[in-house]
Amino acid sequence: MNRKIKEPQGLLLVVSGPSGAGKGTICNLMRKALPELAYSVSVTTRQPREGEVDGKDYFFKTVAQVKDMIFRGELLEYAQVYGNYYGTPKPYVQQLLNEGKDVLLEIDIQGALQIKKVFPDGVFIFVVPPSLEELRARIYKRGTDAEDVIEKRLRAATGELEYASEYDYIIVNDDAEKATKRVLTLMEAERYRAGRTYFLVDDMIRSGK
Amino acid sequence: MNRKIKEPQGLLLVVSGPSGAGKGTICNLMRKALPELAYSVSVTTRQPREGEVDGKDYFFKTVAQVKDMIFRGELLEYAQVYGNYYGTPKPYVQQLLNEGKDVLLEIDIQGALQIKKVFPDGVFIFVVPPSLEELRARIYKRGTDAEDVIEKRLRAATGELEYASEYDYIIVNDDAEKATKRVLTLMEAERYRAGRTYFLVDDMIRSGK
Repeated sequence: MNRKIKEPQGLLLVVSGPSGAGKGTICNLMRKALPELAYSVSVTTRQPREGEVDGKDYFFKTVAQVKDMIFRGELLEYAQVYGNYYGTPKPYVQQLLNEGKDVLLEIDIQGALQIKKVFPDGVFIFVVPPSLEELRARIYKRGTDAEDVIEKRLRAATGELEYASEYDYIIVNDDAEKATKRVLTLMEAERYRAGRTYFLVDDMIRSGK
Repeated sequence: MNRKIKEPQGLLLVVSGPSGAGKGTICNLMRKALPELAYSVSVTTRQPREGEVDGKDYFFKTVAQVKDMIFRGELLEYAQVYGNYYGTPKPYVQQLLNEGKDVLLEIDIQGALQIKKVFPDGVFIFVVPPSLEELRARIYKRGTDAEDVIEKRLRAATGELEYASEYDYIIVNDDAEKATKRVLTLMEAERYRAGRTYFLVDDMIRSGK
């Protein structure tokens, strides 16, 4: 018998997708719909800006500290952007999940696939635009970028679409409100997955009640 | 790249669980909520009763015909009950799915696990009572069975609970209406699964639109 007994813990939701798909908007709507949803505080080596609070906006670290965290496997994913490190701290996320809190991470594709290796039980959601034409329209609308820069971003996004098959769910973002409702639906369904619910059945069998 | 490209087709929903869990009630409520939901017509070797229509109530077959179907692998699952064969015809279910119709099967645990081998992409749902005490109360309420028969059924049902871990979802049937809503929710979520939605993304990439 292939038993999968797990203590009840929070869901790790990783929302990812190419730029222009609208994952940021969906994550904001998710937080509005579920104010109790936890999210990760990233570590960074960049200087705090005015008003930023350590442990709330970011965990501010030195380069040596972040390299040490990477070495000890304490970052779920990390990237270097303009010479600064940014990363997602694993013990922090793990603690939230152990406390039974659902954690939402909005993260780029490379980062999401790194996280999947550490948390294969996470729920990996890939947001796609309804069409490449719509994606082009959104990238145009958003920016002041030159035509060739836009075309380059569009090609990059198209290339990234192929990674959708590595995820658990694909959400078509034709309308941000509707797409958010779809994510909330799959979140509920994930709670009924046998891997997450079997402990209830196991309790019944063991207790005889 | 691990591509999973599938043409859109109907969902195969297999609702199973120990007797007394209430899978029959849930399936009836599902059919009410989704009148377009297809269900399988079983084959049987028993004689048609008055008013029963071949191809609607059952496909009536001879023992030789059913044995032939088993031999050719045309039954998804079958069992012998009081000397008669009962089975679920595979080509019939496959045709409904190919037509894009969702198919609901209410089936015992052994049958469901047989079907899983043939249709691993089906959605396998295990219905459990909220507690063994509740299961006992339901079995008592239902029947005119003697105490020792009830205890035997209860022990059998408890033993069957262990199979829950082989399913995709576990639905606790504390209230039939609520449990049905949960099944409808997971049905919607299953449509967003990457394995079922990737064809949309693939279309975008191939067409460039």
